[in-house]
Amino acid sequence: MAAPPPSPGPASTGDVAHATAVARIADEPADHRFKGLPPDAAAAGTTLGELAAERRSLFTGGFTTPVLALSAERLEHNLTALADYSARHGLAFAPHGKTTMAPQLFNRQLEHGAWGITLAVPHQARVARAFGVPRIFLANELVDAAALRWLAAELDADPDFRFICYVDSPQGVALMDEALRAAGARRPVEVVVELGAGDGARTGARTETECAAIADAVAATGTLRLVGVAGYEGEVPGAELEAVRGWLRRLTGLAVSLDAAGHFADLDEIVVSAGGSAWFDAVAEAFAELPALSAPTLKLLRSGAYVSHDDGHYRRLTPFNRHPDEGGLQAAFTLWTQVVSRPEPGQAFLNGGKRDAAFDLELPEPHVVRSASRAGSGEGTMRDATGLTVTGLSDQHAWLRVADGTELEIGEWVGLGMSHPCTIFDKWQVIPVVDAEGTVTDLIRTFF
Amino acid sequence: MAAPPPSPGPASTGDVAHATAVARIADEPADHRFKGLPPDAAAAGTTLGELAAERRSLFTGGFTTPVLALSAERLEHNLTALADYSARHGLAFAPHGKTTMAPQLFNRQLEHGAWGITLAVPHQARVARAFGVPRIFLANELVDAAALRWLAAELDADPDFRFICYVDSPQGVALMDEALRAAGARRPVEVVVELGAGDGARTGARTETECAAIADAVAATGTLRLVGVAGYEGEVPGAELEAVRGWLRRLTGLAVSLDAAGHFADLDEIVVSAGGSAWFDAVAEAFAELPALSAPTLKLLRSGAYVSHDDGHYRRLTPFNRHPDEGGLQAAFTLWTQVVSRPEPGQAFLNGGKRDAAFDLELPEPHVVRSASRAGSGEGTMRDATGLTVTGLSDQHAWLRVADGTELEIGEWVGLGMSHPCTIFDKWQVIPVVDAEGTVTDLIRTFF
Repeated sequence: MAAPPPSPGPASTGDVAHATAVARIADEPADHRFKGLPPDAAAAGTTLGELAAERRSLFTGGFTTPVLALSAERLEHNLTALADYSARHGLAFAPHGKTTMAPQLFNRQLEHGAWGITLAVPHQARVARAFGVPRIFLANELVDAAALRWLAAELDADPDFRFICYVDSPQGVALMDEALRAAGARRPVEVVVELGAGDGARTGARTETECAAIADAVAATGTLRLVGVAGYEGEVPGAELEAVRGWLRRLTGLAVSLDAAGHFADLDEIVVSAGGSAWFDAVAEAFAELPALSAPTLKLLRSGAYVSHDDGHYRRLTPFNRHPDEGGLQAAFTLWTQVVSRPEPGQAFLNGGKRDAAFDLELPEPHVVRSASRAGSGEGTMRDATGLTVTGLSDQHAWLRVADGTELEIGEWVGLGMSHPCTIFDKWQVIPVVDAEGTVTDLIRTFF
Repeated sequence: MAAPPPSPGPASTGDVAHATAVARIADEPADHRFKGLPPDAAAAGTTLGELAAERRSLFTGGFTTPVLALSAERLEHNLTALADYSARHGLAFAPHGKTTMAPQLFNRQLEHGAWGITLAVPHQARVARAFGVPRIFLANELVDAAALRWLAAELDADPDFRFICYVDSPQGVALMDEALRAAGARRPVEVVVELGAGDGARTGARTETECAAIADAVAATGTLRLVGVAGYEGEVPGAELEAVRGWLRRLTGLAVSLDAAGHFADLDEIVVSAGGSAWFDAVAEAFAELPALSAPTLKLLRSGAYVSHDDGHYRRLTPFNRHPDEGGLQAAFTLWTQVVSRPEPGQAFLNGGKRDAAFDLELPEPHVVRSASRAGSGEGTMRDATGLTVTGLSDQHAWLRVADGTELEIGEWVGLGMSHPCTIFDKWQVIPVVDAEGTVTDLIRTFF
């Protein structure tokens, strides 16, 4: 346990812009663009905000299958759980927004005290800025000249906008410098040296020597400003706790050595960042042990998948499995599909497939069956999905094995859990938020 | 070679509505919602139509990476190739729209003489109707009561709208009937009995006896009208030419037997439909051999992937490989990504990943490298991508192996071919159409 982070909470100017732009999402028509939404709402010219206000049932309110639902209670639980975790460990939090690309969720993350939003590519930063996000951490290299022109204009137009990105090579630094000069950039772009998570890892310089050379290269530009170090422990090859801890000690050691070499001499704040959704306990531990540097340190955690959590990859990997006393996350997604065919006794087909469900890490997992609401009215009953197994996905169908003795009728709805939030969110442009009673209380718009 | 199909070309009323609604896509702002589009166009309030009219270079016109490009020439080639093939073989053509979900491409398919558009799920039908598609073949069962309410209203509101869908069970027929009665449907919904492609196949009744029982069930409703038979030969287990031919003979035999039993007695036209993108030669052959039925027959082919074709799955499977004298298709997609990191001699990272590229059948395939346009200006040069191999995808990165002696610099663009059009289109809401000179001539909007 440590002191609270030095820069908690969103900047006030951006906060207002953000809230205003996000509020306008409610004015969008709930029309044919958004799969799963009630056709009658589109016909009536209903907006997303009005549809949420109607408090319809997901099951009998005219929503069509397949439809993805995000649990209202579990979403709030998860937002709180990692905000609390970060605060308790003295970490600032920039949740990775690439997971959801949902400004309404960015807003809630900021309301829960997030420092800002992490993103992966410039397009995502443009979306975030369109909705007023005041601080962006781009956990990637950025050498695209057109994107850097946009960034330079955005920074110059809004003195309250803070943007930090990776650099992992002198060549990348040179390309950024050239593009920013050509764009006539006035404010320097803040960068952090990315330390790769070892040989065979993803991006990031492999050695401390290379990192020092990159820091020197940054110092030689007039367009970039080195503000710290960062990396991603999730790509440590063969990642297990000791290997991750070892790399995190290298990262904090790099911060110390660059600081000692005077690279952070003019800073009000030094940034040290790591942390996806699988090892944030190790990050908290390593960052707690970071010695005092020459300026206050922004210890920035960047987990993203925690928002919805999942029923697969992150269920197994969450650090809360190692630390149940610290809290826990709850899988918040259910993909509701309908049985459209039962051509053989052991075989059924659902009307959701690769276009609707995550499938890159694991196949969806049947959780619950809802008996048919005949003609869309009447109350269905829920039962456990025991005996049902998804064995494959076509583009628009799931192949469902039905064990001997398991009842399953055409027309019934099957609720599926899934693995990997990033490839769930990106298949849905509007996602109903549904409370424990099955009432749709909000509609989350994504921008992929 | 046979007579032209009995109902070629789109219905005139729908055609006009379609063209008008599609034209309005050009009025949408080219803004932050659409990845890859030039940020300066968004800042200037440029619309999609205006941006296309500016005839910018994809490479130096401010587009950001990653960006998906559709070849103008190859697209037109493919549209023509299958329209010609269908006409030559006496087939009506309802290209599967689920592949692209792009009303502008639906429009071009209709202009090339398509009978209508095939779709997979009701949401897709709603999109097509929002853009005025006059005839929809839903190659799926439809038992969703809310979707059937929408369908009933749509049919009743537009006497020129024609809609046909599958039925593959008496239970499904009962659910449809119940929902349509509850909706107060006035026009009957046209259905075709779906014959499954054998035991272990996807949807569709497994036996001719079951199909006859389904036909009887349809006849007993007041809300459905049986108009023919259909199925999908692409799911014949262990599909090879003889197995596919065998199943197609069963399908045409089913049409004959249901006709002989009087199930099509009141029809002006009997529908017989099959055909994805892998076996349309076998479909043409089987349909050519179909004996005369009691009414003219609409022999409906439904290939969808041909529009863009691909550099993997369909490159291997296209029937034009067996019949080069009949024409051929050309892979029309290039995903342009940028090298953002070269952390080890044999390793590079591109800024496109699972969010941008198809990866469900095969990994992307590097085709071409474009040297960096420094600061977005100046001309790059193209070279072959020999020595580069994509070995994996993260959410926002491609892992690129670089063979010894292969040059590749940070900032260069790498053009990737991909496998499976359905999972390429669905990752992009706007796709630049680019001519052979690299000029963006159109912007295709998708609705997934």
